[in-house]
Amino acid sequence: MAFSTGFTRRFGVRHPIASAPMGGSAGGALVAAVSRGGGFGLLGAGNGDPAWLAREVPIAAEGAAGPWGVGLLTWAIDAGAVERVLECGPAAVMLSFGDPGPYARRIRDSGAALIVQVTDLDEARRAVDAGADVIVAQGTESGGHGARRGRSTLPFVPLVADLAGPVPVLAAGGIADGRGLAAVLALGAAGALIGTRFQATAESLVDPAIAAAIVAGRGQDTERNRVLDIARGSRWPAEYTARTLGHPFLDEWRGREAELAADAEAGRAYRDGVASGELPPVPIWAGEGVDLINDLPSAADVVGTLVAQAEAAVAEAFGPELSG
Amino acid sequence: MAFSTGFTRRFGVRHPIASAPMGGSAGGALVAAVSRGGGFGLLGAGNGDPAWLAREVPIAAEGAAGPWGVGLLTWAIDAGAVERVLECGPAAVMLSFGDPGPYARRIRDSGAALIVQVTDLDEARRAVDAGADVIVAQGTESGGHGARRGRSTLPFVPLVADLAGPVPVLAAGGIADGRGLAAVLALGAAGALIGTRFQATAESLVDPAIAAAIVAGRGQDTERNRVLDIARGSRWPAEYTARTLGHPFLDEWRGREAELAADAEAGRAYRDGVASGELPPVPIWAGEGVDLINDLPSAADVVGTLVAQAEAAVAEAFGPELSG
Repeated sequence: MAFSTGFTRRFGVRHPIASAPMGGSAGGALVAAVSRGGGFGLLGAGNGDPAWLAREVPIAAEGAAGPWGVGLLTWAIDAGAVERVLECGPAAVMLSFGDPGPYARRIRDSGAALIVQVTDLDEARRAVDAGADVIVAQGTESGGHGARRGRSTLPFVPLVADLAGPVPVLAAGGIADGRGLAAVLALGAAGALIGTRFQATAESLVDPAIAAAIVAGRGQDTERNRVLDIARGSRWPAEYTARTLGHPFLDEWRGREAELAADAEAGRAYRDGVASGELPPVPIWAGEGVDLINDLPSAADVVGTLVAQAEAAVAEAFGPELSG
Repeated sequence: MAFSTGFTRRFGVRHPIASAPMGGSAGGALVAAVSRGGGFGLLGAGNGDPAWLAREVPIAAEGAAGPWGVGLLTWAIDAGAVERVLECGPAAVMLSFGDPGPYARRIRDSGAALIVQVTDLDEARRAVDAGADVIVAQGTESGGHGARRGRSTLPFVPLVADLAGPVPVLAAGGIADGRGLAAVLALGAAGALIGTRFQATAESLVDPAIAAAIVAGRGQDTERNRVLDIARGSRWPAEYTARTLGHPFLDEWRGREAELAADAEAGRAYRDGVASGELPPVPIWAGEGVDLINDLPSAADVVGTLVAQAEAAVAEAFGPELSG
């Protein structure tokens, strides 16, 4: 048994699983391990920093067992970043958070597949119009950045699938075990794009303390806000929030984002707190499915486990019916 | 092909679909139609008002083709309400929003099944401890009332299923077509409890204008808040918000709930606006899956359509794999 979908056939990968291009932490080792497991890995190249690409791309290219991709933050890039990424020879470039229009044609003309991540139906329409080869429907359950007023994965994915027609849709947000994978396939997705589960792996470029916090974390302790982006002076545009685990600064400023942005002293207090070790060095981005993450395996094994769990879930829920 | 689950076997119904006990609108006609379609209908009895029960129970009892149940708001009832409901002879009593402990034993001793709706893992544990026969895991996508800081259906249902062990779990929130039903079965649920989809049916006790608004409504226009409960002087406790479609009063007071509660003039303006017809007479409770609702069929047909769509979704996603 294997899940053959429009996504697996498009890229010739074994399993309908992509690892999310998590800024910084999705480096070459993670991409290579996901590929060896039979999935499709995406480098988290952010704004396309040349030094980061020079370091991580060879690790991905040499370690991968098949095609791999690069993810960029659309609001943070220019045409030069797209050229730098295309020179690396990815099978796909994924654009998230912003208008893919200015870069879509160049990417498709290069022969790379264009993957566009969307957070609402207007963005989904824009992605179809831009000629996306794959659309990622991101639910608000996802860890890290997303739209302030996003949609939930379960009701959102079928809508995007209807709108996308023949274009394969990956579901993202809240998927951390094989039951979630099976569920989004039932919704009409061609696979899952998974982030947090791949943060807690041997190959993720995160501090061991962050991986441990994800293993210990609970979904009910995650929340979506801008507090930590404002405090650390991040360049993320105001229309995006980030889902993180709890944080002392968040308890202090929850719901008072405008006030925090106007308070220079608060920003200093945050930086001082980080410098002194009183505050954690970075926010811990984590999705609402974090409860389901309880170990730190290789990302290659994560892919296999997700598929085995999904097969078991399908057999349990539908086996008697389909064989009867 | 049919979906046989712990829920269908427990009640001897054909399909793993329950209609939510929506306050007031889930009357006897809706319950009877859902039952005739092969599902399990629940009367939305709120606080167990004797006159409402006297009117609606006979319609359910005479029209149903099998077992049916009654839903109560736990925070709004006393032991007398439970006795009144049990005298009606339901196959199940569902308790939502509050501690089921004081009523659990009486309900189970009567022979009726105890169904408990939960919005987080602490409540799920409490439901198991109370001896619930069925647990409803409600995601924040759901229409109408729910916890202020609820969980999303996709990552929440597997956790509750793990915690509940042999107790059947129904998923609620964001399920409005058969793809959603198939997805929650894959997550490990024994069925779906569906609200908004059943509001827009021939048998729902809602004003035709509300049914039409649901048919026209979009999930991105729904939001969860307390504004309208405060404005109309509702008795709902502060820990519960309600997901509704847009409303002019909501645009005026969004994010300023404490201020609204302290402003007697605003409450008067709301009541005057409703009286004069400038404001809609009641909030339109609707879940995030409302985009998927585009017609006003009989609730009996909704059950059949959901099952047929779910079967098609399963065959499409998993048919080749399971038969291969």
